[in-house]
Amino acid sequence: MSFDEALAYFQSNDHFLISTHESPDADGLGAQYALCRGLTALGKQAVALNSDAYSAKYSFIDPQDLIQTIGQCGDSLPWLASAHLVLLDTNDIHYAGQVAAFALAHKLPVFIIDHHELEASREISGYAVMEASSCCELIFELLKALGIEMQLDMAKALFAGIVYDTGSFSYSKTRAGTFQAAMEMVTLGVQPEQVHAALYESSSIQALLLKKNVLSTLELHRDNSIAIQTMTQETLIQSGASYIDAEDLINIPLQTKSVAVSILFKETDAKQIRCSLRAKGQINVAAIAQTFGGGGHKNAAGFKSTLPLADLKSKMLSLLQRLF
Amino acid sequence: MSFDEALAYFQSNDHFLISTHESPDADGLGAQYALCRGLTALGKQAVALNSDAYSAKYSFIDPQDLIQTIGQCGDSLPWLASAHLVLLDTNDIHYAGQVAAFALAHKLPVFIIDHHELEASREISGYAVMEASSCCELIFELLKALGIEMQLDMAKALFAGIVYDTGSFSYSKTRAGTFQAAMEMVTLGVQPEQVHAALYESSSIQALLLKKNVLSTLELHRDNSIAIQTMTQETLIQSGASYIDAEDLINIPLQTKSVAVSILFKETDAKQIRCSLRAKGQINVAAIAQTFGGGGHKNAAGFKSTLPLADLKSKMLSLLQRLF
Repeated sequence: MSFDEALAYFQSNDHFLISTHESPDADGLGAQYALCRGLTALGKQAVALNSDAYSAKYSFIDPQDLIQTIGQCGDSLPWLASAHLVLLDTNDIHYAGQVAAFALAHKLPVFIIDHHELEASREISGYAVMEASSCCELIFELLKALGIEMQLDMAKALFAGIVYDTGSFSYSKTRAGTFQAAMEMVTLGVQPEQVHAALYESSSIQALLLKKNVLSTLELHRDNSIAIQTMTQETLIQSGASYIDAEDLINIPLQTKSVAVSILFKETDAKQIRCSLRAKGQINVAAIAQTFGGGGHKNAAGFKSTLPLADLKSKMLSLLQRLF
Repeated sequence: MSFDEALAYFQSNDHFLISTHESPDADGLGAQYALCRGLTALGKQAVALNSDAYSAKYSFIDPQDLIQTIGQCGDSLPWLASAHLVLLDTNDIHYAGQVAAFALAHKLPVFIIDHHELEASREISGYAVMEASSCCELIFELLKALGIEMQLDMAKALFAGIVYDTGSFSYSKTRAGTFQAAMEMVTLGVQPEQVHAALYESSSIQALLLKKNVLSTLELHRDNSIAIQTMTQETLIQSGASYIDAEDLINIPLQTKSVAVSILFKETDAKQIRCSLRAKGQINVAAIAQTFGGGGHKNAAGFKSTLPLADLKSKMLSLLQRLF
């Protein structure tokens, strides 16, 4: 669907449920908040509704407390029969959790706005721009074209989503339009420093202790080109952190020039091991993950295994040798 | 001096030595490279010349190998008698090392382009904009106004400087003009991902080992609001890293919401201890550094001491209690 068709869609409908994927992130939430505010300003009925509550650290994105869970709202809407579901930051309704079941039960037409890769063979109903940095960048352009006056709270929410999804303007999809949008947001009064503090200086002390303890397990192999870190169940419990706090630790070794592959083994409570792999440049770790029954992209993949850690590690290392 | 006066300066002179501060960083080097390229394109004579060689990791900023050390060049320039020294990214000639002595010996007029704070009482000869994110942002605007066609290598050098000096568009001086400049650079073909990889994925394996070992010394005090890390001389030697690799480690604890002050004790080879302090928000660590004979800004300060580490730490902790 073209940009103009997407505009026509919002102009010609009046009742919107706006949602994003489960475990919503700053891009989904920022887009959701700003779109909800914008459509309401246009005189439309719009409600932002997710399958689960967002993490407390994202509350700065939703200063008017607009984003509800399906349990809080849902069936009570008087205009539900004529509502459309706008799904943001995912191209698959199955990632919307209970919202998917709700949409199905009420036969709501679904309209997707997304920027993720989509197989050429798949068609979605909605507006997808794979080259866009973030869903927030797309929503910014749509709101402008709809003639909606951007308020500071909306700009701040959208800026947060762009920063989050571009690694602060560093990932490959960061394009001229991304900087253009950021420029306009800052002109409206958004303070980059404030948004960064809210996004990145609010992690828990437990996450810091986890970083300390997991980094202390760092091993280097094959002339320092392979880095391995291990998070045992004991480490996780001792630090008091949650499993999700381990997410970024795999990226630390990749800041090193010689490290081409970074691996993180995480023991889950079921004595299963989850393994994440990240690679730089031309190295393809998806094939390795597939060997263990997992999957992913060339530079980011993962799998689960019930092999003992030592066996898993030696099997992994011998497979990795072939990649170089 | 106004922007127009700065333009007139470059239009009315013909021979330029272009330099930056000692231990040059990406902002100084990017500005130096692009200005040298730009003035040469205008038909001027321009040579980029520093007191010391830049770190190998910055060589991507200078693909034409234009930036020399004063030992390589200096006295041999035929037009030295009519040369001006343009000093970038510092407002004090004393930070230019041997270039300062050289300028004095040859009685070169000095013209400063900078964006650092300047006491109101001090006057410099040159163009200083304290609100600018970086020296590279200023050079970008000047080159455009001089009618110089921006080539990709120049844009890439300037983009690197902006990314470096703004913490990737996150520090408080990141303004609309910063994003405007970035947008134009990306339109010219700069790839943010590539610049980030060159700046931030090229640290040494020794620096990674140092991070692991220093982070393992992390202590938390006063309800997790004070973080202390210690780098002994032994840790430094064991990791094989250089002293400068310790620079960023102090920032890790500040990503935690509860940590308001982060301290790093570094043992130097002279059995002296260098202490760095960083703070968030309203906490002023400069006063503490002054107590120990050091100095700095409200949120970033430091000092040297010959006290034993244990004594220093307990004295520091009791002083810190008063700040909260």
